[in-house]
Amino acid sequence: MGRDGLKDLIRTVPDFPSPGIQFRDITTLLADAEGLAASVDMLAELASDLRVDKVAGVEARGFIFGTALAIRLGKGFVPLRKANKLPVECIGEDYALEYGEARLELDPSIITADENVLLVDDLLATGGTALAGARLLRRAGAMVSHALFVIELPELGGAQALADAGLEAKALLQFGGR
Amino acid sequence: MGRDGLKDLIRTVPDFPSPGIQFRDITTLLADAEGLAASVDMLAELASDLRVDKVAGVEARGFIFGTALAIRLGKGFVPLRKANKLPVECIGEDYALEYGEARLELDPSIITADENVLLVDDLLATGGTALAGARLLRRAGAMVSHALFVIELPELGGAQALADAGLEAKALLQFGGR
Repeated sequence: MGRDGLKDLIRTVPDFPSPGIQFRDITTLLADAEGLAASVDMLAELASDLRVDKVAGVEARGFIFGTALAIRLGKGFVPLRKANKLPVECIGEDYALEYGEARLELDPSIITADENVLLVDDLLATGGTALAGARLLRRAGAMVSHALFVIELPELGGAQALADAGLEAKALLQFGGR
Repeated sequence: MGRDGLKDLIRTVPDFPSPGIQFRDITTLLADAEGLAASVDMLAELASDLRVDKVAGVEARGFIFGTALAIRLGKGFVPLRKANKLPVECIGEDYALEYGEARLELDPSIITADENVLLVDDLLATGGTALAGARLLRRAGAMVSHALFVIELPELGGAQALADAGLEAKALLQFGGR
């Protein structure tokens, strides 16, 4: 399966969660055995020339691809969790969403100083979530230089926002619009 | 790595989220490359004599092991999502938590009638979440006969509750207490 086949498995839902937004839904990709395996294979290809000690994923959909990629690369997985989920002392970063605010939290004790952590999420829009994740990982002592995504919405400028923070973004699929 | 080695990677946090609860935390297992890979290998072993067409996982930690197991078995993944996450018409099941209520939702269009869906989550306590997931999948037309867990707390009776609903539970690790 190539990238075009993968793209065909993404479902577009108009006007969700609000009018004018074209929601790119991965549910239909996940349910397809061949598409799911191919997406992780392709993410592993994107990571093949990177130094990776651990893979981090953002709750909840980043857990899906992040864990699968970590196992594929033979590495450990670092969950970047929503607020109040971790049972231990953790560090947090707030970030802006289209409506309101959200918070990511990390248990810094699972990061070793100067290890290379590859950030993974399903979708790159404005980049706010990925930037919060990278700040958290760096505060814990990790080096974070790359972020991988299944889907990128280039018109929202996320790749540039990440580049401005020293983070190179790579995505499997690009979709126009927002 | 055997099950004892895996068990050593689970962190126990006393009195979280409330006094008297021993929280069994998988964060430390996930971050360990060998432990993460071994846990998915062992789940695949538990599934080796089952007919599995798709693997379903409960948001958010069930996404971690569910997706990894789906890929390992060469199957598609069905996310059982928290309320208001899915962009399409979906079906939902409410269930009781220790404090308050929660809701799982499923896009029934990704289930084919009579396919065998294997339910996966990180932890089996009273079984309420798994039962809600099984009800949802069955309402969508799936056959659901088995549920796999990384951790089981046998004193909470979840395996019996699942058995009463025609669902056989298997877990990699058992921990005493609640």
